[in-house]
Amino acid sequence: MKLTPSPFAPARFPDLPVVKGVRATTGSRGFYAARGMTRDDVFLFSFEEGTHCAGVYTLSHTASADVIWCREALKSGAGKARALIANSGNSNAFTGAKGVLKNEATLKALTETLGVEKQECFLAATGVIGEPLPDPNYVGAFVPDLAGKLSAPDWEAAARAFMTTDTFPKGAGLATKIDGVDVNLAGIAKGSGMIAPNMATMLAYVFTDAAIAPDLLQGLLEEVTNQTFNNITVDGDTSTSDTLMVFATGANGMAEIATRDDPRFAEFASALKQVCLDLSHLIVKDGEGASKFVTITVEGAVSETSAKVVACSIANSPLIKTAMAAGDANWGRIVMAVGKSLEPIDMDQLAIWFDDVQVASAGGRMPDYSEAAAGGVFAQPEFTIRVHLGVGEASATVWTCDLTHGYVDINGAYRT
Amino acid sequence: MKLTPSPFAPARFPDLPVVKGVRATTGSRGFYAARGMTRDDVFLFSFEEGTHCAGVYTLSHTASADVIWCREALKSGAGKARALIANSGNSNAFTGAKGVLKNEATLKALTETLGVEKQECFLAATGVIGEPLPDPNYVGAFVPDLAGKLSAPDWEAAARAFMTTDTFPKGAGLATKIDGVDVNLAGIAKGSGMIAPNMATMLAYVFTDAAIAPDLLQGLLEEVTNQTFNNITVDGDTSTSDTLMVFATGANGMAEIATRDDPRFAEFASALKQVCLDLSHLIVKDGEGASKFVTITVEGAVSETSAKVVACSIANSPLIKTAMAAGDANWGRIVMAVGKSLEPIDMDQLAIWFDDVQVASAGGRMPDYSEAAAGGVFAQPEFTIRVHLGVGEASATVWTCDLTHGYVDINGAYRT
Repeated sequence: MKLTPSPFAPARFPDLPVVKGVRATTGSRGFYAARGMTRDDVFLFSFEEGTHCAGVYTLSHTASADVIWCREALKSGAGKARALIANSGNSNAFTGAKGVLKNEATLKALTETLGVEKQECFLAATGVIGEPLPDPNYVGAFVPDLAGKLSAPDWEAAARAFMTTDTFPKGAGLATKIDGVDVNLAGIAKGSGMIAPNMATMLAYVFTDAAIAPDLLQGLLEEVTNQTFNNITVDGDTSTSDTLMVFATGANGMAEIATRDDPRFAEFASALKQVCLDLSHLIVKDGEGASKFVTITVEGAVSETSAKVVACSIANSPLIKTAMAAGDANWGRIVMAVGKSLEPIDMDQLAIWFDDVQVASAGGRMPDYSEAAAGGVFAQPEFTIRVHLGVGEASATVWTCDLTHGYVDINGAYRT
Repeated sequence: MKLTPSPFAPARFPDLPVVKGVRATTGSRGFYAARGMTRDDVFLFSFEEGTHCAGVYTLSHTASADVIWCREALKSGAGKARALIANSGNSNAFTGAKGVLKNEATLKALTETLGVEKQECFLAATGVIGEPLPDPNYVGAFVPDLAGKLSAPDWEAAARAFMTTDTFPKGAGLATKIDGVDVNLAGIAKGSGMIAPNMATMLAYVFTDAAIAPDLLQGLLEEVTNQTFNNITVDGDTSTSDTLMVFATGANGMAEIATRDDPRFAEFASALKQVCLDLSHLIVKDGEGASKFVTITVEGAVSETSAKVVACSIANSPLIKTAMAAGDANWGRIVMAVGKSLEPIDMDQLAIWFDDVQVASAGGRMPDYSEAAAGGVFAQPEFTIRVHLGVGEASATVWTCDLTHGYVDINGAYRT
């Protein structure tokens, strides 16, 4: 089927900085050619010696073979990275022993072609679940071709190569100076939300020429994930392949950031968080069928975790998501979603705002409630829902999109 | 908006048996008249002295004032019941002190008119959340009119009086003999699934002339709920008003069933379960926009609870529900939903069937997988998805419907 571009699609791919120590290329292996489409479907990145990496992966108990390998490599390789290869069109999930053979063949090709260690090579695959590849070496046999073309990354080409149900390529980056040294970050992501294990698994990679110790980078990535990628939802489904990795080449010449106390750590953390936040928002804005981008903030909770559970209960409610789609400021459904979360609240203190319009206070509708004012907020393409639970000081923010006819169309009609 | 009748709507309301000791009536209080609709919107039931009751209610932390009262009455009245009154059109949820005043006024009218105790009177309300009534006595003032018309129940009229987004009135019953005595059960339910706190809260009531001790009845109802109403889902949303109650008048003359060891207990339990199962399935079949009725059985789990978590993960997945709607046998999404449940599984033993068509075994797609055979199952209006997790002996079954354009339409366009 022909996908309608998201109304949030940017006019063009952003200019991303040059990240020293990173080379890349893309190619067409034929995953989509078999479906009559002409497009690249594989990318290969190579990294200078000394590159450190960190990764977070899906919690799914049916994780893909590629995710299982990445976890193992990250551990046994102690956070060193030399290569990353990803394909779209087939997720290599629920493929059993055949999936492992595909990974072994790909890793063999990478080590032989690039002269690197196996555990420094990272893999990803996104597409249909459960369909074995025609040949275990299907990707591996393509590595020499790709390796011969490695050069300064064309970020947009890479971002396009791993698109599935995405309607636009997603990139974000920034260039900054930390302690007088240029630090560049460039990131690419794919996914129409957490939603789509079938043709739209979420994958995101951030590349930087900063130098940072691998353990420190891993801890930082986990913190950043909890403030960015873990706070977006399209429909609450979790893919078998979700992956976020960061690669830090250290090629900008800075002395390695080795401790949290290093004043440069906070600056780098802030830059990394900004890039991850931008990429995660792009995924929501390309949520399948999305027409609204909604920020949900829950305050006055007993803990940050509790606030996030309530925010996700609101964000994942099909009733609320359909009301968003219709521009219907159905605030009673917010009360429902708060209640069904089973988190601690004081119903008599519950308050709700749509942007700056307060619709409920002290456990009841505002005396001067105005349907026109509330509806005006919901009619916008982007708005905020804010809820105060009245039991504590903690808060959390998540980002989501609406549930439209487009979602039903895309997910009903896709696979075959 | 005009609702399209469910394709599962029965040709006519079933014949339900006479239940001795129960009288009822319905009337139009004006909840819908204000919206230009002519229909009844209140029912009143009265029960003979000696009637016992049991109830289970929403777990929501924003439960309606009526639910809060019913819990209190059930406890302080020790399971005695004389009256039940319900209205559609306004849920009396998130109405604070005003909601309590409405209940007090209604209870005062019931006790004075019927000459019964306050804690023997049960209340329910279903409709928009958060809108206060124009007058606390809005329902109470109507009680004398209703009480004057009490007679043998017109089950269909009662079932129609509390409909909201329901497209057909729901009733189920059976007549049996237990130890030589006639036992009659009649039940009515409303709701388009668990889905709809706003205009389609789930309420269900079963009436019987059997005699059973209140504590025993309460325990039985909780067991039955876990096998019936707690195993249905339309979209995973939980209402502020969900209520299931059973009223046992004992008017059939049988000696009271007072212990679980009484051989009549199992027979009565079986009858009650059948009526609850029938009613719960009718709710799914009238799920908002539903075009498919799907049974999901999870076997080989470490516990019944674990099996149910996995079954609900499948049943509530928007990706799977949209695939059902399209008749797309997208079995990879089942793997996704099993994985995201985070329950114990053996991925290498995972097996999946659509009706009798096995699509996956030993953690992989069947060697002779046939898209035509799998798609043929999904094309039917009713079918079963069966999953074996490979780690234990426990199982659970839940029932759900698909996610269609109708759902998006109904929930986007409803309130205003």
